[in-house]
Amino acid sequence: MTQKNDIENLISLFSKLPGLGQRSARRIVLHLLQEPEIRLHNLIEMLSITKSKIVTCEECYNLDIISPCNICSDHSRDQSVITIVESVADLWAMERAKIFDGTYHILGGALSASKNMLPNDLRLPKLIERCETHNIKEVILATNATIEGQTTAFFIMEQLKDLDLYISRIASGIPIGGELDYIDEGTLTAAMNSRKQFDN
Amino acid sequence: MTQKNDIENLISLFSKLPGLGQRSARRIVLHLLQEPEIRLHNLIEMLSITKSKIVTCEECYNLDIISPCNICSDHSRDQSVITIVESVADLWAMERAKIFDGTYHILGGALSASKNMLPNDLRLPKLIERCETHNIKEVILATNATIEGQTTAFFIMEQLKDLDLYISRIASGIPIGGELDYIDEGTLTAAMNSRKQFDN
Repeated sequence: MTQKNDIENLISLFSKLPGLGQRSARRIVLHLLQEPEIRLHNLIEMLSITKSKIVTCEECYNLDIISPCNICSDHSRDQSVITIVESVADLWAMERAKIFDGTYHILGGALSASKNMLPNDLRLPKLIERCETHNIKEVILATNATIEGQTTAFFIMEQLKDLDLYISRIASGIPIGGELDYIDEGTLTAAMNSRKQFDN
Repeated sequence: MTQKNDIENLISLFSKLPGLGQRSARRIVLHLLQEPEIRLHNLIEMLSITKSKIVTCEECYNLDIISPCNICSDHSRDQSVITIVESVADLWAMERAKIFDGTYHILGGALSASKNMLPNDLRLPKLIERCETHNIKEVILATNATIEGQTTAFFIMEQLKDLDLYISRIASGIPIGGELDYIDEGTLTAAMNSRKQFDN
């Protein structure tokens, strides 16, 4: 298969996307090549449109086609509450759950020695500026329930403690539908420690 | 998330690619959006290059950047043997196995009542023309070992029987590493019926 470099390069590029490997990348590329004028064309066009429009929100670092993003500029949402998340994926997950109607702040990761993420790599100056100037009343720490996420939550709490804010942390516990027998000990410990009075 | 249509459209397009769903498509799009000037740009460029170059081989219907394709125009390969496969994916699988050094003919599917694939939908006229004019000596029927593939193999054998060709069919049997206990009865029957004398 000499000279087949363009197709092989394309497969190789797809195979490096998250969740894909050689085999799945080959299937996708073959699918696209079956009707290049439709499938390849549509994908190229959609990617190009997205590339030309995508911007990072100057307030919360969300990805959107406008800045400030649709969430930061939506005045039907509570602009006095900020939920702090690690990534855009976390923001999307929150939005899918339809549980929160305020704004977000995307840190861009969590403190981590192994990934060399240091305090200066988090987008904290902008967060502090927003808290000071935008009449923010509550900050919800929604970093992951991992060691890195917990460390980051504690660190941010320290940074914000002198501001006049109600700071909360999302709960850890048994996931809905979870069976105790299959839950790890750390989660069980967290669930026990966070137990609440049970009443109707 | 009003107005987020471009990103959502892109996710929706990815989610329709083979093997992907909503969740995996979201992960991929988020990954691309993290560094649009690098990741989106590279993917668009590679897709565009492929789209501009891809052609269907006029001889065997392979997808390549030249026609006749690299296999049909490679005179170090045995141009007197044709392996008949259902799809380009099957050709790629054969090439990965490095077991065959002749040429191919891609049918574009197999006879199937449920998929409405009729004899006229197979690329047989070109195959017969190749057999008649290109001094072909052997044809190997490598359609799938499914009912459709078997039917198609028998049908093609009928079509070719008046030509002066050695026609063979790839073997069915226990896959290498397979355990009898886990093999279906059809495969066991095929393996028994195709048994060969065992000698050193």
